[in-house]
Amino acid sequence: MVGVDLGGTKILTAAADCRGGVLGRVKVPTGADLGLDHVVNEIVRSVELALQQAGITAENVAAVGVGAPGPLDPRVGLVYLAPNLGWRNVPLGEILGRRLNLPVFVDNDANLAALGECVYGAGRGADNLVYITVSTGVGGGLILGGKIYHGFSGGAGEIGHLTVAEDGPLCGCGNSGCLEAVASGTAIANRAKALIEEGRGLGILSEAGGHKDGVSARAVAAAASRGDGEAIMIMRDAGRYLGVAVAGIINLLNPSAVVLGGGVMQSGRILWEAMLDETRRRALGPALQGVAIVRAALGGEAGVMGALALAAQNNIKKPADDL
Amino acid sequence: MVGVDLGGTKILTAAADCRGGVLGRVKVPTGADLGLDHVVNEIVRSVELALQQAGITAENVAAVGVGAPGPLDPRVGLVYLAPNLGWRNVPLGEILGRRLNLPVFVDNDANLAALGECVYGAGRGADNLVYITVSTGVGGGLILGGKIYHGFSGGAGEIGHLTVAEDGPLCGCGNSGCLEAVASGTAIANRAKALIEEGRGLGILSEAGGHKDGVSARAVAAAASRGDGEAIMIMRDAGRYLGVAVAGIINLLNPSAVVLGGGVMQSGRILWEAMLDETRRRALGPALQGVAIVRAALGGEAGVMGALALAAQNNIKKPADDL
Repeated sequence: MVGVDLGGTKILTAAADCRGGVLGRVKVPTGADLGLDHVVNEIVRSVELALQQAGITAENVAAVGVGAPGPLDPRVGLVYLAPNLGWRNVPLGEILGRRLNLPVFVDNDANLAALGECVYGAGRGADNLVYITVSTGVGGGLILGGKIYHGFSGGAGEIGHLTVAEDGPLCGCGNSGCLEAVASGTAIANRAKALIEEGRGLGILSEAGGHKDGVSARAVAAAASRGDGEAIMIMRDAGRYLGVAVAGIINLLNPSAVVLGGGVMQSGRILWEAMLDETRRRALGPALQGVAIVRAALGGEAGVMGALALAAQNNIKKPADDL
Repeated sequence: MVGVDLGGTKILTAAADCRGGVLGRVKVPTGADLGLDHVVNEIVRSVELALQQAGITAENVAAVGVGAPGPLDPRVGLVYLAPNLGWRNVPLGEILGRRLNLPVFVDNDANLAALGECVYGAGRGADNLVYITVSTGVGGGLILGGKIYHGFSGGAGEIGHLTVAEDGPLCGCGNSGCLEAVASGTAIANRAKALIEEGRGLGILSEAGGHKDGVSARAVAAAASRGDGEAIMIMRDAGRYLGVAVAGIINLLNPSAVVLGGGVMQSGRILWEAMLDETRRRALGPALQGVAIVRAALGGEAGVMGALALAAQNNIKKPADDL
């Protein structure tokens, strides 16, 4: 099978055997500014290259899975809105199906990262898995009964917009106190900047080379690792709020695995342990006992591995020897 | 088919046609203090009576659905713990299957109320439905893809233990700020009692006949309906917290329906409207547009109707003319 992870800046394509063993792998720039036709051509070319590398002919491919950014209708592969690509209502599944002459299945990139971690990554074997990615924003995906759970209109998994701080800061969505507004990389950096504006947070400022505008979550994490008290407080609070959300999800969904990925989750022990402590404090005993709370294992490959898994799940034509 | 709702004080049993049309209905006291054998005998007798009323013979029954309190394993019908009944590890499904000589399917009462509302009640036609019951405590159930969602170990749907108030009051579960600790009937009454202890809340006190210990959520609701400012504040706050939880659930699960039942939800417009306002404020636009937020329609019959629906879903033997 073939998996494609279409991002705003790059297209990552893999051809694999039926167990997800990657035999061919191609990475090319998206070139979104060159228009839809260019992007489609690049995807088609990438698929051909990956198959060539893998020594597989197109006739032996059962299905292609494609991850795309933004809200979309997975049933027909219609991308509603992808600001990164300048797309609105693009029937990507239909276009690629025609060009590749293969069954194409499209899903949201966060959903596919969740599926990738569930089938090939940190949540292998989990039937019900919640994936949370914490980077600039906070996103996620739900795998229930081994399949992506989309909800009524494809909007499920908006973990970043769970309210975790009753009177917390305003979120980009218009609500206040969303997880994304208190625990994303952006939120962590904003809190540090606010401290610095008050003349505090000097340890963080020095990690950012003395430039307030250069303060990032990474700088805060670095200062925290060095033992800076203010940075530790910021990372702990972000972790604590993540724990409120994780506990809520455990109480609501009783998943077998919660997988946390994204750049902010790689920022050291302080945030991770604050998250775990808060989760343990707030989750119900029986549900907590059954759940594995683990770091994502696939990093930037989660999306393309999920696209491969999606292709495999939709391979109804050749169950025995699918590629 | 036959549905049984086994409660701490009464057993409600119904025999119905394949569309859920109830043809026979029997209500008897549980008599839990008389022991397990007595309760089982009462269930068996109720089923026989309901079938007799309905004019159905046992050979024409495809399956029996049973709702039981407390955590249980629905796969084998094992009730882990039901303090109301004095039960621990009772293999109810096995016992009843042998006694009735019919396939018996057991599930949690809140899950079955959710299924009942989904199949026959306020959420008819919804594929993904969240049911929330607010009475002494706050419970719930999730219907995803038309079926009860149990999670990894049967613990899903613990909506009462979502954290909605970061630094809120302690909950019975040990956590603080759970929905149950701020929006249940118990929480509403406790808040009023605390006011009265401070010498305030006189409007509420008079609704309770002047006795502080007699203050219930019902008394607070009655005072609020009469325009009492303190009672209105308490009902509004409870509604607001319900809205935080409902919005979170909408953002996470993108359901097509949220159904709210239980005694506290019948306490007038103030709580309901505060819940709706807060939900609208905090839920993401697309998910909010697609969801029906409605009052439960089946009242005390939700459980037994859900038991009927469970029997119908598990009727694989006689798809054409099941009873």
